[in-house]
Amino acid sequence: MWLIGARGSVATTAVVGCAAVAAGLQPATGMVTETAPFADSGLPALGDLVFGGHDTATTPLPKRAEALAAEGVLPYGLPDAVRAELTAADDAIRPGGPQPGDTRGDEALIDAFAHDLDAFRRNHDLARVVVVNVASTEPVPTDGDRLPPSSLYACAALRAGCPYVNFTPSTGLHHPRLHAEAARSGLPYAGRDGKTGQTLLRSVLAPMFAQRALPVRAWSGTNLLGGGDGAALADPAAATAKNAGKARVLADTLGELPDGDLHIDNVPALGDWKTAWDHVAFDGFLGSRMVLQTIWQGCDSALAAPLVLDLARLTARAHETGLTGPLTELGFYFKDPDGGPSGLADQYAALTGFAARLRERS
Amino acid sequence: MWLIGARGSVATTAVVGCAAVAAGLQPATGMVTETAPFADSGLPALGDLVFGGHDTATTPLPKRAEALAAEGVLPYGLPDAVRAELTAADDAIRPGGPQPGDTRGDEALIDAFAHDLDAFRRNHDLARVVVVNVASTEPVPTDGDRLPPSSLYACAALRAGCPYVNFTPSTGLHHPRLHAEAARSGLPYAGRDGKTGQTLLRSVLAPMFAQRALPVRAWSGTNLLGGGDGAALADPAAATAKNAGKARVLADTLGELPDGDLHIDNVPALGDWKTAWDHVAFDGFLGSRMVLQTIWQGCDSALAAPLVLDLARLTARAHETGLTGPLTELGFYFKDPDGGPSGLADQYAALTGFAARLRERS
Amino acid sequence: MWLIGARGSVATTAVVGCAAVAAGLQPATGMVTETAPFADSGLPALGDLVFGGHDTATTPLPKRAEALAAEGVLPYGLPDAVRAELTAADDAIRPGGPQPGDTRGDEALIDAFAHDLDAFRRNHDLARVVVVNVASTEPVPTDGDRLPPSSLYACAALRAGCPYVNFTPSTGLHHPRLHAEAARSGLPYAGRDGKTGQTLLRSVLAPMFAQRALPVRAWSGTNLLGGGDGAALADPAAATAKNAGKARVLADTLGELPDGDLHIDNVPALGDWKTAWDHVAFDGFLGSRMVLQTIWQGCDSALAAPLVLDLARLTARAHETGLTGPLTELGFYFKDPDGGPSGLADQYAALTGFAARLRERS
Amino acid sequence: MWLIGARGSVATTAVVGCAAVAAGLQPATGMVTETAPFADSGLPALGDLVFGGHDTATTPLPKRAEALAAEGVLPYGLPDAVRAELTAADDAIRPGGPQPGDTRGDEALIDAFAHDLDAFRRNHDLARVVVVNVASTEPVPTDGDRLPPSSLYACAALRAGCPYVNFTPSTGLHHPRLHAEAARSGLPYAGRDGKTGQTLLRSVLAPMFAQRALPVRAWSGTNLLGGGDGAALADPAAATAKNAGKARVLADTLGELPDGDLHIDNVPALGDWKTAWDHVAFDGFLGSRMVLQTIWQGCDSALAAPLVLDLARLTARAHETGLTGPLTELGFYFKDPDGGPSGLADQYAALTGFAARLRERS
Repeated sequence: MWLIGARGSVATTAVVGCAAVAAGLQPATGMVTETAPFADSGLPALGDLVFGGHDTATTPLPKRAEALAAEGVLPYGLPDAVRAELTAADDAIRPGGPQPGDTRGDEALIDAFAHDLDAFRRNHDLARVVVVNVASTEPVPTDGDRLPPSSLYACAALRAGCPYVNFTPSTGLHHPRLHAEAARSGLPYAGRDGKTGQTLLRSVLAPMFAQRALPVRAWSGTNLLGGGDGAALADPAAATAKNAGKARVLADTLGELPDGDLHIDNVPALGDWKTAWDHVAFDGFLGSRMVLQTIWQGCDSALAAPLVLDLARLTARAHETGLTGPLTELGFYFKDPDGGPSGLADQYAALTGFAARLRERS
Repeated sequence: MWLIGARGSVATTAVVGCAAVAAGLQPATGMVTETAPFADSGLPALGDLVFGGHDTATTPLPKRAEALAAEGVLPYGLPDAVRAELTAADDAIRPGGPQPGDTRGDEALIDAFAHDLDAFRRNHDLARVVVVNVASTEPVPTDGDRLPPSSLYACAALRAGCPYVNFTPSTGLHHPRLHAEAARSGLPYAGRDGKTGQTLLRSVLAPMFAQRALPVRAWSGTNLLGGGDGAALADPAAATAKNAGKARVLADTLGELPDGDLHIDNVPALGDWKTAWDHVAFDGFLGSRMVLQTIWQGCDSALAAPLVLDLARLTARAHETGLTGPLTELGFYFKDPDGGPSGLADQYAALTGFAARLRERS
Repeated sequence: MWLIGARGSVATTAVVGCAAVAAGLQPATGMVTETAPFADSGLPALGDLVFGGHDTATTPLPKRAEALAAEGVLPYGLPDAVRAELTAADDAIRPGGPQPGDTRGDEALIDAFAHDLDAFRRNHDLARVVVVNVASTEPVPTDGDRLPPSSLYACAALRAGCPYVNFTPSTGLHHPRLHAEAARSGLPYAGRDGKTGQTLLRSVLAPMFAQRALPVRAWSGTNLLGGGDGAALADPAAATAKNAGKARVLADTLGELPDGDLHIDNVPALGDWKTAWDHVAFDGFLGSRMVLQTIWQGCDSALAAPLVLDLARLTARAHETGLTGPLTELGFYFKDPDGGPSGLADQYAALTGFAARLRERS
Repeated sequence: MWLIGARGSVATTAVVGCAAVAAGLQPATGMVTETAPFADSGLPALGDLVFGGHDTATTPLPKRAEALAAEGVLPYGLPDAVRAELTAADDAIRPGGPQPGDTRGDEALIDAFAHDLDAFRRNHDLARVVVVNVASTEPVPTDGDRLPPSSLYACAALRAGCPYVNFTPSTGLHHPRLHAEAARSGLPYAGRDGKTGQTLLRSVLAPMFAQRALPVRAWSGTNLLGGGDGAALADPAAATAKNAGKARVLADTLGELPDGDLHIDNVPALGDWKTAWDHVAFDGFLGSRMVLQTIWQGCDSALAAPLVLDLARLTARAHETGLTGPLTELGFYFKDPDGGPSGLADQYAALTGFAARLRERS
């Protein structure tokens, strides 16, 4: 498993959590692939996963894990208990890019990243490497000549023959210049933008309004978050990418996008804890005006990490069984999926159907 | 359509709304049977429905409707616009019972109610009469010798050959002494306890936690409501009946009933407007503690009335096509359904499947 | 009483309400001047108030009132009951300005407005005229050569010898070119920006945190509102003016402005009903992280109108007793007051002290 | 400082926090006595406080502190840093009572407790000992012959010449058989029931409604809490005592107690973290219906501990300066104070006035 953004909160939590669950130190809370429908689907065991990745940050993983424990994101003592696994993963992290001052062009960067992937596979004698983007959301690209960084990494995955998962709203494989190469690659891929909190809620609530024939007049929302993601999304260009995915869930499920703004505020005091308030104004029978409000308070890394592990396992197994192209059955995990149904219940049915297909291929 | 509790808020709103939608004065907001999947299912037209019912209250329907308009539950001017339909329905209301001082035994009451149903059908030359209980929740019965009133009415429906729908948590057909008679009757029936607000929400949220493998540690809730229902449910025995249905949704969907109390408070100042607060404490990956809170503010009558019309139409059509016994495909509408799936999405699939079956029988 | 924005929701509600309370049709809910501490302060009786004003809108007041009743802002039937008073007030409304295409300069407009005020006073044989700005918030002015409209009206009030109250965040008398004229006028005045909802709450909650030595880490807020105010504040320049006042309450009370954004969203579906969500992240003992959230749902016109009547009465009486300059004791009513204490409790003490002073001058 | 319930969460947090703040390891967040108005009031320094107490529990303080750190109530590492102070305090804890099977009568118990107090003072050569009750809320006493435990301890304080503070809703000195003895004692005392969360909020919000002439139609609330307090208050008799104090704030401030229930639910999953939801339905101008909702999420021990330290310091200083009887100026801290004003702002003014009086007596 190769993580773009390998020293971020989500990646650190995934490495710690994989080790802790594999060792029986923690239950597999939040890992859908550890529930009954996935029992015989031939997924790689958690204990067999090997971690590496790219990052421009240099703080070592053990130190990042200690910081997350001090903030209450990880249980106290756990970083120490899995120190060996953290150190091993940190040793396999290679510098990301392009860094300021880097004069290499797109092709040179892609080659360098693909080389890193290849070396990781060879050094660890791995059957396959799944590349998962968990880096901070990048601004919507404006320079048409250069590929955005997320697309450089995605392209490197294709060149190195690695399945690819985009857990962020960044462009990744969704760049017009990569479509043909993705199609040609014969690789499975999935994305984009993990559905961890507010949008997860919206994907179950919006179908309820539609099924009950209750027209939504306005759906407004505010997200407060600190941590790296809060700072990244304070950039309006990055927030635009994020919000597009959030809006898509409503538009797809309700038939049209209702009125209402969506704010993402950087509140450093909240650290990695996110609060999302939603206010849904809807009509009842004979024009009565009704309101639903939701407040979601969760830890972003803890919500994302088990899904990241799920996706890596499912995509690895899809690769093993010879599946190619967009894995539409993984829409359960994404705000802006590559096709498939839009309500969470239908997406869950598609996912368990996918688990059954993987089982049959064993 | 024969309403038990025919002069209550829900019944009044159903009569007003049916007339208003049939006349094109109002859209069919909240009526699932007016959406596309039900287009050719052979349901009776709204304009063909005829209303009557039992009630112990004597305030005429036009006056009740005016009062609801003054409270903002009905649009101003609408009671006037459908006065003819209100008067016609009021003329067909017969006294309910047993009233204090009534010395008739159960059998005599059942006979009297069944006679009222029969006379309504004959007088209006109706193809069939669907009996729908929308009366105030009755206390959990303690006197084993007498049937509770809701069961007297339900039994009268069976005797008169009428399909029966229980929109309340009261006993109705769920009385041990009525099981055999219901089975023998060859009639379709459905219940119980309409799912209009907090429980509707729970039936989409609880599956989300289950599907995402996020264990719910505690699910606590408080309902504030005024109106007749608030006063009725201030009686702990009545609240017990109500709460059993609400709890069932969680237990069925989550696998076990989580910690947490559920309060129903009578707040006369709120009138027919209900506020429900839910607080869900759940675990995330590596033991992180997360919280979802929801606040639902709606008008109870406006939420219930379109569902009552839906149920009457679906049950009438089921009767017409010869279906018998519990209509398990109507679980979409109920807190405590007679079988079928427990999550709302699966219940919606069952309902639209039912609509297709009704269509094929045309 | 001369209202700038005399055909808006606030003005309409004030005219209807003054008539209704004076006639004993409605209680004086929300009117602080009708409570015990003001009993003998010599305020003008509600029945003695005469209304006029400026507006660029032309929909007559009786029709505006009917529209507000249809939306549930005014009780049904009330506009009819006070139709005479509404018509009288509407007859006294003069065209505001500058309208598009108006070629008059600032001085000509001020003269015209002052002339309207003078004519109103003479025609109705009034002891005095209090000018109150309740018009939509204007954008922060950028053209340094022209006075913004709110300042034209304010200057006209000075020229006509009328006390002035600014209930909006618009510039009004707070324009550098009016300072000297205001000081010279010998008139009392008050402002600015009525404290009706979210900021009212903040003015009691912020002192609580300060008094309990609980440092606020971030205070975030979102306002949803429709109606004319929602549309006006969707203009970022207008929202800037509004937010400055809201922020001032926190900065004054907490000692420094905490982190956190403040959003004002236009949600037409909400009409005149406003929802404000606040999220306060604060520190507890030994670094524990705590959160207070508030949700305020109110009708903006109904919150503002009684305060507007209060202010007109208090300012009229101040003028009668010879008080001049900024009435700092009226900070209770404003987000951005002309001096005085910042917490609501202290402002209330100042206000009742003012009532006592007015009483002594009788 | 002698704590009744010396091994509970509040007491443990107070001991840890006093040591940490005295050593400069933590800021004095939440300690009002460390703010400017108290600078020269002659309060005992935090570093001079010595801790002991009664408890029936036997888990040593260092172990209790470790458990609180594991739950996130105390910062990780802090219990270790103040281990010496925790051990010293634990050594000074004496067995509480009466334990099951204890055959001693009231007088014997009082004598034993008074003896413990006296020994503590002598052993540590203390100027005075302030007794503070922070034990779990006891049920409303029903047996008229025996004093409830809280009153036994309070009486022992009087006998040993110790000032007394009741931070709980238990009876303490408010027992009819102790009134005369308290009056005769010449000691200062204060109580009862610390105002830490929901009631603190109510004491600032209720005056706002009163001052703005907005009648509250219903004030409803639900508290969710785990920890020892949650379990204790799940006993309806204990909850009754707690709720009486909460209701008093509303009744005193609003003039009458509004409609609305108040629930206290034991939710073990929340541990020491408390969530309080309040729903206030109030009337606006011309009968418009408005709603304020608040959600308070805090850590009970962290809210209480700094207030407990405040109270001990203030009461010690009051004793030193010769003040006697109920300290009505400390109403700022209590739900059910011994007189004084009822709104928080007025109580704060009374408290800072008290600080000035103490200063003058230096």
